Amino acid sequence: MRYWLLVSFSAISIAFYSQNDSVFIRKIYDEVLTNGKAVEDLRSLCKDVGHRLSGSASAEMAVKWGEQRLKQYGFDTVYLQEIRVPHWERGTKEGAWVQLQSGAVHQLRILALGGSIGTDGVLKGEVVVFNSLEEVKMARIDELKDKIVFINQKMDQKHIQTFKAYGACHAIRSHGAVEASLKGAKAVLIRSLAIPTDPHPHTGSMHYNDSVTKIPAAALSTADADRLATLVYNNQCKQLYLEMNCQQFPDQPSYNVIAEMWGKRKNEIISFGGHLDSWDTGEGAHDDGAGIVHCMEALRTLQVLNYRPNHTLRCVFFMNEENGNKGGEGYAEWSKKKGEKQVAAVETDRGGFSPRGFDVDGSAADLQWLRKFSATLKPYDLLHLEAGFGGVDISPLKKSFPGIALFGLATDSQRYFDFHHAETDVFENVNHRELLLGAAAIASLIYLIDQHK
Amino acid sequence: MRYWLLVSFSAISIAFYSQNDSVFIRKIYDEVLTNGKAVEDLRSLCKDVGHRLSGSASAEMAVKWGEQRLKQYGFDTVYLQEIRVPHWERGTKEGAWVQLQSGAVHQLRILALGGSIGTDGVLKGEVVVFNSLEEVKMARIDELKDKIVFINQKMDQKHIQTFKAYGACHAIRSHGAVEASLKGAKAVLIRSLAIPTDPHPHTGSMHYNDSVTKIPAAALSTADADRLATLVYNNQCKQLYLEMNCQQFPDQPSYNVIAEMWGKRKNEIISFGGHLDSWDTGEGAHDDGAGIVHCMEALRTLQVLNYRPNHTLRCVFFMNEENGNKGGEGYAEWSKKKGEKQVAAVETDRGGFSPRGFDVDGSAADLQWLRKFSATLKPYDLLHLEAGFGGVDISPLKKSFPGIALFGLATDSQRYFDFHHAETDVFENVNHRELLLGAAAIASLIYLIDQHK
Repeated sequence: MRYWLLVSFSAISIAFYSQNDSVFIRKIYDEVLTNGKAVEDLRSLCKDVGHRLSGSASAEMAVKWGEQRLKQYGFDTVYLQEIRVPHWERGTKEGAWVQLQSGAVHQLRILALGGSIGTDGVLKGEVVVFNSLEEVKMARIDELKDKIVFINQKMDQKHIQTFKAYGACHAIRSHGAVEASLKGAKAVLIRSLAIPTDPHPHTGSMHYNDSVTKIPAAALSTADADRLATLVYNNQCKQLYLEMNCQQFPDQPSYNVIAEMWGKRKNEIISFGGHLDSWDTGEGAHDDGAGIVHCMEALRTLQVLNYRPNHTLRCVFFMNEENGNKGGEGYAEWSKKKGEKQVAAVETDRGGFSPRGFDVDGSAADLQWLRKFSATLKPYDLLHLEAGFGGVDISPLKKSFPGIALFGLATDSQRYFDFHHAETDVFENVNHRELLLGAAAIASLIYLIDQHK
Repeated sequence: MRYWLLVSFSAISIAFYSQNDSVFIRKIYDEVLTNGKAVEDLRSLCKDVGHRLSGSASAEMAVKWGEQRLKQYGFDTVYLQEIRVPHWERGTKEGAWVQLQSGAVHQLRILALGGSIGTDGVLKGEVVVFNSLEEVKMARIDELKDKIVFINQKMDQKHIQTFKAYGACHAIRSHGAVEASLKGAKAVLIRSLAIPTDPHPHTGSMHYNDSVTKIPAAALSTADADRLATLVYNNQCKQLYLEMNCQQFPDQPSYNVIAEMWGKRKNEIISFGGHLDSWDTGEGAHDDGAGIVHCMEALRTLQVLNYRPNHTLRCVFFMNEENGNKGGEGYAEWSKKKGEKQVAAVETDRGGFSPRGFDVDGSAADLQWLRKFSATLKPYDLLHLEAGFGGVDISPLKKSFPGIALFGLATDSQRYFDFHHAETDVFENVNHRELLLGAAAIASLIYLIDQHK
């Protein structure tokens, strides 16, 4: 691409509302794109704290980091809201090997699924492969009894938005252990919920059912999943060896970290946030360090621009989205008990990728409201204004505040499942401009809600 | 992001035209996303050929590669269209060092600009810094006389689409040498036209003016540009040393590579393409290997789906976009001489990034025509349907075929200038799904043009 001619010459449309809005939103983008702190904030979260699973020392450090960082920006108030969170640890042993009929052994790259029990020493067994959770459910007990079940369900590449492919596979991770155990399996391995074929296993939460025997559960990298499936298909496997000493500990206290810019109507709240916890691999850069720094940067920017809000703008770093949602649940209950009015809530938890617009989880009128700003948002390539999902952390607000409109930042999803819950989710894999544009989009939406809702 | 709930529940809209169109476009995406060859094609172009500047041996190999690859897919015809291209070579020497007043020396990472003369040995001089080409134009002759001019103009991060920032800086690369030479400078260095601050210089074309003394021109990495500017500002620089032995050779023959799927009206052509040449650094993966494989994959997909076109679908791998556009010019003239009818033309030259839609360089009616398909294209996140630029290679068709509509694939531009014309533009920096989605978008647009134009 050589010439500078590639400049869209479409005029900027001005809609009914948008004269002042357009001017202010342009200021937001100028501030974020020239003075933005989100990149340095994310670097610090990723490198000074690291990954931060609920209940870990690093999650405790993340709370301190968030509190200190928010205080440093001088918002009207910064405080912690106590909750209780689950505490699971991966432990020190985590390995899988397949022994072939020939005697050769191959190591398989795994990550225990979050919440899994350990293997209590080395667990050995014959491997049986299924291509979906449905196949497991339909299989006969003697096919699974005393075996290690490997569910090799692939994410369907035909979906345009990768979250749809994720949704279609999610049950193998969350319910694979229960379904396999119901038929007597002694452990379950799943193909990682990932788009590329590569050597990185992707973890995530799984669930047991109190009436079914708990069995260990782990995710195989997609590359090793392909390899193992081929070996089993060709009858080359003798036995699989699995060793994990992960375990659950008692729940413990933790915190949501909250900062506010007080509004003229102080008790009327616009909540916006991401989640501070992450899985215990990589650095939780896209999931959801990006969301954390989006929100911090949005509040910083509104403050720098001397914005005086009508409602209280409350930035929430939710704890424990990944394996319990205790932060989201605790926040909704706490706010209701305080007698607050929640005007609307916004979440960003789809990575630091190029923003495409917003989803709204609310009424038809809420969607119509959002679309009134389509001309105002168009110069920023925020063209996707659709009914959709808000976010895990803000979802409990629907119960406490019936009728509340929830908004989710919609980012380009193509690369999300390259990194999701894997060791590759690190700061280096976040593009600086994409991250900053997400922060500006969040600040713009908060501004529009504050002005017009 | 934990739950599978994040599934947009917006219904798929069906517009007037779109019943059959929607079914066929879904087939296109299914084929590309499950059986697509574009990733392997791009790997091969990048690794089996490498970068491929016009006139080089590797450009000759790229022509052979394209011809062989297209023939292998068994299209109706594959042939070469001869053109003449410029031939410039970087040479074996390319270095810059700054000597400080303290005596210390620092190496600066540079790339000669394409078309630059060499330094004829080691060129030494005092450095003077300007922050824009306008400053150079307004400076007094004695400020530049016998000096090495360093133009440190930064790409303006405030632009949302990075191509606009590129357009605003482009003149320092194309005209910096002429403007500096007019005031007696002996060489010109420019800050690379790049978004990030990093150690990779970005090359690109520059121009001389026959009435002005030719002086050597090179691009500094953005990191070294910042460093050098600081050193000069603090009066720490004594002298800059520059050595380059790049040179221009006589023009030589080369080729556009063409494949066709014949239509019912064989002489009515829909042209679509990217450019086969690249700068002589990196692998030309995004610029424009992605465009090449987009187009090859589009034609392959339409063939696999047994599509019988109304018009002849002609895939053109243009040669020499980067430093002459002889491929684009030659193609337009050749087609006109043959008495063909050009129905419309499509170009993809904005990288293998997530597609956002299409720009149209044509009449208001052409834009209106494109927007009739907004509901059909929406499920594929192709929301950007705007007046804009088609592409450098297809631009000469406007002169030969007045009134022709030109379409350009609009991709997400945020990362383009991280890699553009730099050693980082390699296969590994192209996301597989983003690449495939671009190919499917091109195939879909060609189908719509063939059916409805």
